[in-house]
Amino acid sequence: MRNSAGGLAGVLAPGALIGAATDDSGIPASWRVPGSGFSNYGQPRDARDSPIRWISADRSVPGAGVSWTPLHDLEGIITPNGLHFERHHNGVPDIDPTTWKLGIHGLVDKALTFDLDALHRYPMTSKIAFIECGGNSNSLWRSPPPQAPAGYVHGLVSCCEWTGVPLSLLLNEAGLQSGARWLVADGLDAAGVSVSIPVEKVMDDTLVALFQNGEPLRPENGFPARLLVPGWEGIVNVKWLHGFQLTDRPLMSRFDTVSYTDLGSDGTAERFSFEMGIKSLITSPSPGQSLDGPGFYELKGLAWTGNGVVARVEVSADGGITWVDAVLQEPVLDKALTRFRAPWHWDGANAILKSRAYDSLGQVQPEREALLKRKGSNAYYHYNAILSWSVDADGSVRHVYA
Amino acid sequence: MRNSAGGLAGVLAPGALIGAATDDSGIPASWRVPGSGFSNYGQPRDARDSPIRWISADRSVPGAGVSWTPLHDLEGIITPNGLHFERHHNGVPDIDPTTWKLGIHGLVDKALTFDLDALHRYPMTSKIAFIECGGNSNSLWRSPPPQAPAGYVHGLVSCCEWTGVPLSLLLNEAGLQSGARWLVADGLDAAGVSVSIPVEKVMDDTLVALFQNGEPLRPENGFPARLLVPGWEGIVNVKWLHGFQLTDRPLMSRFDTVSYTDLGSDGTAERFSFEMGIKSLITSPSPGQSLDGPGFYELKGLAWTGNGVVARVEVSADGGITWVDAVLQEPVLDKALTRFRAPWHWDGANAILKSRAYDSLGQVQPEREALLKRKGSNAYYHYNAILSWSVDADGSVRHVYA
Repeated sequence: MRNSAGGLAGVLAPGALIGAATDDSGIPASWRVPGSGFSNYGQPRDARDSPIRWISADRSVPGAGVSWTPLHDLEGIITPNGLHFERHHNGVPDIDPTTWKLGIHGLVDKALTFDLDALHRYPMTSKIAFIECGGNSNSLWRSPPPQAPAGYVHGLVSCCEWTGVPLSLLLNEAGLQSGARWLVADGLDAAGVSVSIPVEKVMDDTLVALFQNGEPLRPENGFPARLLVPGWEGIVNVKWLHGFQLTDRPLMSRFDTVSYTDLGSDGTAERFSFEMGIKSLITSPSPGQSLDGPGFYELKGLAWTGNGVVARVEVSADGGITWVDAVLQEPVLDKALTRFRAPWHWDGANAILKSRAYDSLGQVQPEREALLKRKGSNAYYHYNAILSWSVDADGSVRHVYA
Repeated sequence: MRNSAGGLAGVLAPGALIGAATDDSGIPASWRVPGSGFSNYGQPRDARDSPIRWISADRSVPGAGVSWTPLHDLEGIITPNGLHFERHHNGVPDIDPTTWKLGIHGLVDKALTFDLDALHRYPMTSKIAFIECGGNSNSLWRSPPPQAPAGYVHGLVSCCEWTGVPLSLLLNEAGLQSGARWLVADGLDAAGVSVSIPVEKVMDDTLVALFQNGEPLRPENGFPARLLVPGWEGIVNVKWLHGFQLTDRPLMSRFDTVSYTDLGSDGTAERFSFEMGIKSLITSPSPGQSLDGPGFYELKGLAWTGNGVVARVEVSADGGITWVDAVLQEPVLDKALTRFRAPWHWDGANAILKSRAYDSLGQVQPEREALLKRKGSNAYYHYNAILSWSVDADGSVRHVYA
């Protein structure tokens, strides 16, 4: 891929002039005056042209809505904390860490309550993992194809390093009774989010997360503690944790039933569809961006799966007639975003770009038609079909169903 | 290690009361009112009790000094962008990205100039890597042992995911002439930082970094472009890049000579000591923290090396008489911080905690006495000796030379 860079020479402006913003003497202005000082906590350069989360708020319900990670403006696999997507059902509560407690009750030998200092005494572990809302990309269940920057349609997914206490440690201390098959986790937000999660998953790899990318959780990501349920839909990664109840059956809360449940074509409900499917998208070029004439471009994108690791990503520039393997950037981590890259020489004619991801269990990202056929016309969640970007002759990029 | 958690039961307060901040009805206050809304760019919860960079500024030179990453408050291996350490020699310039250009000249077949759009056309790659100032921990060359939180003595090291263009791509396009042995990189700050780097390193793994943890670089970390020279002392990771000159010998700038050069006991200079040595520290418990009585604690810390990967970390609670292996948390990445963890049961008596790291090339972190003997009494940079924390009977933690 790197050898392709030679093709770039034609688009650059080589010359002997070195440097920028010089005055008549050729001395950069920034060499003449001291710069600004230090800060206790850094910020992006300029809110006017730095990447931001786009907010889609439901004005009829305070604090309900989403904000989108600008995947089309970002690089690598880590999402900075300020740009992690938000999905709140009734706003962001401000929890006082000095009085906060986390409880475990129900089918346990001994009910337990932990304050924040107590949780900090436990062994912790970290995991770089994505969280994706079950409703990410859901405007694509309908026609026409939405035209917006890629992150503002598909950016209810983000990836951070989460650190916290394995929930299995706390549950083992409480002692699971033999009938304990489900864990009901509830949050302190005004929506009263509560979800039911099979005990096998919470004993496997679920964390009571206290840190995100090294620092304490922020309010909009669940301060002081949230669940990280790797690979499973966002709603079960409960924020602002309140407590856990061990039960012999799911609670059938509204978040277990009315929401985050897909209806099949015959009206039957597909509940507890926790695992996020294999998925990918090309972040550059992507809708709303514009190519500056024929020549070399790097196709860059992200792939992820709730099941195993991303094993392979193929890209196509001819609408899926021919495919080539993209390079998966290391590290390729379990249940994390994976960055892929592929070289592309655009000849200036109309092109349809696609990416297709495979996971280590052999699952492959479906074409849209196959997904619609399988899930039916009432589906609302777990959209993971192959995406198509049309590059037109003028260099503009549009989302198409192709 | 996780089995040790059973020992915690004694320090917790089990009980039937679930939840926090409830009123008389037992209903959490946050369930009664909607929370706050969405934000385009998120912030830490509360500047009064969130981790911050500590600023040590030289008041006689505007913008000269450092700010320290609060390693003692952080978890995992990723440093959030707002807490990456800063070392500036004359402040943070504000560079206009629309007029900025990066030049390559000197012993090349063709001088080249790139604007920011042109750089974005090149293939990129990402690397999770630490950057450490050559002067990190340098107060430990002297006595007595400084008493401050660990990050405010050793936190001129941070670790982020950096994304950018391999410098080799740009240099191959310019065409290195046979005599080109050094690359002189200079920055746009008012200090006019310029450093000389061997061509072998810049052709190997050096990036012109444009992104940090996914988002564009921030001003204090070199916006619009900086060097990432993995594993090498911070000064060569030039921020606010201005240009590259290819030369047959080092420039011998003041940053090559007066600064970042150690004097041996006989007065001879050890220049161009680029590579950061194998190093580790225990971040929790650490000086200024206090243990809440005997019982189980997780010893947590960070290890890193500019050479290969961290292969092993041992910890001691008896001042180095006996050692046990810590667990290295995955992923263990080349030239990145590595998180280690080890269970410890404190019996309440005075204890001396130490960590000792090994790299994959067999180098081991030295004891302080051996380092002082080897480097002599004039040394100022590259302090990487084993650190000792004394846990006193009252639970307080102090830095000691032991």
